Amino acid sequence: MSERLTATYYVETPLSLSDAAEILAGEQSSGTFVAVPGETEELKAAYAARVESVEELETVSEPSLPGSRSPVRPAHYTRGRITISWPVHNFGTNLPVLISTLQGNLYELAQFSGLKLMDFTPPAGFVRHFRGPAFGVEGTRLLTGVGSSRPIIGTIIKPSVGLSPEQTASVVKQLVEADIDFIKDDELQANSPHSPFDRRLEAVMRVINDHAQKTGKKVMYACNISDELDAMKRHYDRIVELEGTCAMISLNTVGMSAVKHICDRGELAIHGHRNGWGMLNRHPLLGIDFAAYQKLWRLAGVDQIHVNGIANKFWEPDDSVVASIKACRKKLGEQKSICPVISSGQTGLQAPETYRRVATTDLLYLAGGGIAAHPSGHAAGVAALRQAWEAAVAGISLDEYAKTHPELRQSMQKFKKSD
Amino acid sequence: MSERLTATYYVETPLSLSDAAEILAGEQSSGTFVAVPGETEELKAAYAARVESVEELETVSEPSLPGSRSPVRPAHYTRGRITISWPVHNFGTNLPVLISTLQGNLYELAQFSGLKLMDFTPPAGFVRHFRGPAFGVEGTRLLTGVGSSRPIIGTIIKPSVGLSPEQTASVVKQLVEADIDFIKDDELQANSPHSPFDRRLEAVMRVINDHAQKTGKKVMYACNISDELDAMKRHYDRIVELEGTCAMISLNTVGMSAVKHICDRGELAIHGHRNGWGMLNRHPLLGIDFAAYQKLWRLAGVDQIHVNGIANKFWEPDDSVVASIKACRKKLGEQKSICPVISSGQTGLQAPETYRRVATTDLLYLAGGGIAAHPSGHAAGVAALRQAWEAAVAGISLDEYAKTHPELRQSMQKFKKSD
Repeated sequence: MSERLTATYYVETPLSLSDAAEILAGEQSSGTFVAVPGETEELKAAYAARVESVEELETVSEPSLPGSRSPVRPAHYTRGRITISWPVHNFGTNLPVLISTLQGNLYELAQFSGLKLMDFTPPAGFVRHFRGPAFGVEGTRLLTGVGSSRPIIGTIIKPSVGLSPEQTASVVKQLVEADIDFIKDDELQANSPHSPFDRRLEAVMRVINDHAQKTGKKVMYACNISDELDAMKRHYDRIVELEGTCAMISLNTVGMSAVKHICDRGELAIHGHRNGWGMLNRHPLLGIDFAAYQKLWRLAGVDQIHVNGIANKFWEPDDSVVASIKACRKKLGEQKSICPVISSGQTGLQAPETYRRVATTDLLYLAGGGIAAHPSGHAAGVAALRQAWEAAVAGISLDEYAKTHPELRQSMQKFKKSD
Repeated sequence: MSERLTATYYVETPLSLSDAAEILAGEQSSGTFVAVPGETEELKAAYAARVESVEELETVSEPSLPGSRSPVRPAHYTRGRITISWPVHNFGTNLPVLISTLQGNLYELAQFSGLKLMDFTPPAGFVRHFRGPAFGVEGTRLLTGVGSSRPIIGTIIKPSVGLSPEQTASVVKQLVEADIDFIKDDELQANSPHSPFDRRLEAVMRVINDHAQKTGKKVMYACNISDELDAMKRHYDRIVELEGTCAMISLNTVGMSAVKHICDRGELAIHGHRNGWGMLNRHPLLGIDFAAYQKLWRLAGVDQIHVNGIANKFWEPDDSVVASIKACRKKLGEQKSICPVISSGQTGLQAPETYRRVATTDLLYLAGGGIAAHPSGHAAGVAALRQAWEAAVAGISLDEYAKTHPELRQSMQKFKKSD
C-alpha cells in the first residue's frame, strides 16, 4: 500500500460540504470510472482520492465566484475546510502532475463558488526524493559571510529598466562600498538590447570581485536569468564562470519544470521572485495559499523566496506576511530551510515589529528606496538598516537606539510617517 | 525608436482611473527613478511605459478584492479599461520577462481593487521572431487525415488513473476500431509506477501503428509528457521514435520556459492542456482573459489549446467559450492558427449551437462519456458525433437528421436532458 499525500482546501459551495468534498475527490482521481471488467473496485481501492475530513465554517448568502450551479436553488453557500488524500503512486515524484492533481480543473467546477488550496502534506518518503534548497538560509549566510545575529541586508538595482551595463556597475559599486550583503536585479530586467545579460554580469561581477579581493567580502548578486531555457542555462554557466553565487528566477513566469531543471544544478543559490503571485492569492476564496505555494518551490530546490514585509507597499496585510515567513521556517523533512525574502516598502523601521512577530533573523531583508533615498547616501542607508535590526534584536526601541546612532536617526526622520 | 507593445486591462480602483493607470505604468517600467545624473529624462523617454487610453465604465460601492487603499475614503470604486504600451526593447523577445512586464506585481498593488489582463497586441516585428505553432489546425488535419468538412473527433482515456499499459492499449484498440481521430491521456496520467510512460506509449503506439498499417488512418495520440524537463525530452524522443504525432503538456504546471523549449523541437504537435486555468480566470476582476492567455502560448508554439465547450460541465458560460474559440481563430502575424480543443461534457448535442456561434469546423472536438457511454458502443458513439456535426454544418436539425441516422438517434435518447 502506497503512502498518502493529504491536502487541505478552503471552499465555498451551494451543495452540502460533504457532497462537494466527494465531487472534488472524484474529479482528481479515478472517481469517474467507466466499466473496466472485473477491476473497478480494486482500482478504486488502489487509486481513488479519499475525503479525510470535512469541517463546516460560516455560511454566506452570495457566492464568491460566478458560475456555481446546484440541483436546487441554494438557501445559502457553505464555507468550510476539506481534507483530501491521494496515494503518492498516482503521480510518483512528478511535480507538474502533483500540481495538476492538487489544483488542476478544480477551480472550474460548478459545484464550488470558491476554492483555495491551503496546504498539503507529502509523506516522508516523497520528501526524501527531493534534495530541496541546495543552499537555503545556512548556505546564503555562508556565501555572504553574514552570521546569524542579523538578517542578510540587500537591495534592488533601480531604475529597473534603462541603465546600461556600465551604469548598473556604477550603482553596484556604490552599494558594495556601502557594505551591502546582497544585490538583485529587478524582475523587468533580464537580457535586453540596452543591457545585454553578459555585459551587465561582467561589469557587475568585476566590481563585486574587486571588492571581494580587497575586503574579503563577497556580495551576492541575484542576476535575473529568467528567459527561455537555453538562455537560462548559458547565463547560469556564465555566472558560475565569473564566480557569482546566485541567480534570480521569476518562478511563475518561467514555470516549474524549467525552475526545477535549473535548481538541480546546485552550483548557485536560486533567488525565487514570485511576481504574478497576487493573481494566485489575493482573492480569499480562489487560488493557492502561500503555505502550499512555498512548499512546491522548496521541493523544486529554490533557496530564497519573496514574502513581502510588514507594512509593505502592496495590498497584503501583516498577518498574511507573518504566516508566510512562518511557513518558510517550518522544517520539510531533512531539507535545508528556504530563506524568506522580505521586501516592498521596507525602510528598517519595520525591523522591531518584524522581529517581534517572527522571532528570527534568518531573513533576507531588502530595501530599495530605504537605502537609496537615505539623506547621507548608500552607506548610511545600509548602516541604518543594520542599526534598526540591532535595536530590534536587543529589544531596544528605535527612538532610544537612534540617540546614539546618527544613520538610524536620519533614516527615521526621513521615513517615519507623520501621524 | 523601438516598436511598442500595447496591453489592455479591466481594472477597479478607489482612485481616479487616470491616476491608477499612471501608477500601473510606473510600476511596470522605469517609472520610479532614483536620480541618475543627466539621464533621467532620456531614460524615461526611451523606456517608460505609457498610458495610451483610459475608458471609464461602471462604479461600484464595494471593492471586488481585499486590501485596496487610497489617501481618502473612496465614495465608490471605479471600473474601466486602460491601455498601456511599452517599447519592446524593454523585454526583447524574452517571453517570461514579457509576462512579468504584463502581469508581474500588478495584482498586488493596493491602488487597485481588481485587475485583469484582457489582451495584448505585439508589434509585427516581435511576432515575426516566433515561429508559432509548428502544426496548428492545418497540421493537425494533415496528421490525422481529417479534411475540413468536419471537426477532428477525439476522446480521453478513462479512468484517468489506475489502468495498466495493457488495459490502456485495449481501451485504445476499441477506440481506433471505432474510427476515432484523436485520443488523449488525462492530465492526471503521466509516468507513474502503475503505468510507466514508456510501457504505456509502446502498448498504445503498437495498436495505433497496426491500425494505420491496415487502414491507412493514423490516429493522433496526445500522450502526456508533463514532467521534469529531462523526462519530457526523453519521452518526446520516444514518441518520435515510435512514430507518434503528438505530445500533451499541462501548460500551467510545466510552465512557459519548458513548454517553449519542447515546442521548439517542432517534430510533434503539442496538445496544450490548460488545467489550473480556472484559478487564473474565474474571477471577473482578477487574473488574465483567455484572449491574452492563448496568445502567449501561440508565441511559445503550442498547436492545440483547450477552450471548454458549449453547455460544458464546468462553470464557464457559453459566451465566454465562444469568445475563446474566436480568440484562437484570429490571425497572429504569418503564424499557423492554434487549434481550439472543445471538451467538458460534450456529447455531440452541442454541435449545432457550437457551429451556429463560431461558424467553423476547424476544431478538435473531444467527448469522453459522450463516446464511451453510447448504448451501442464506441463505434456508434463516434458515428453519432460525426452525424451531429454533419447535421450542424448542413443546417439540418438533429431531430430531423436522427430520423435517418440511428447512432445519432440513440445518442440523443441517451444524452438529451429531459426538460
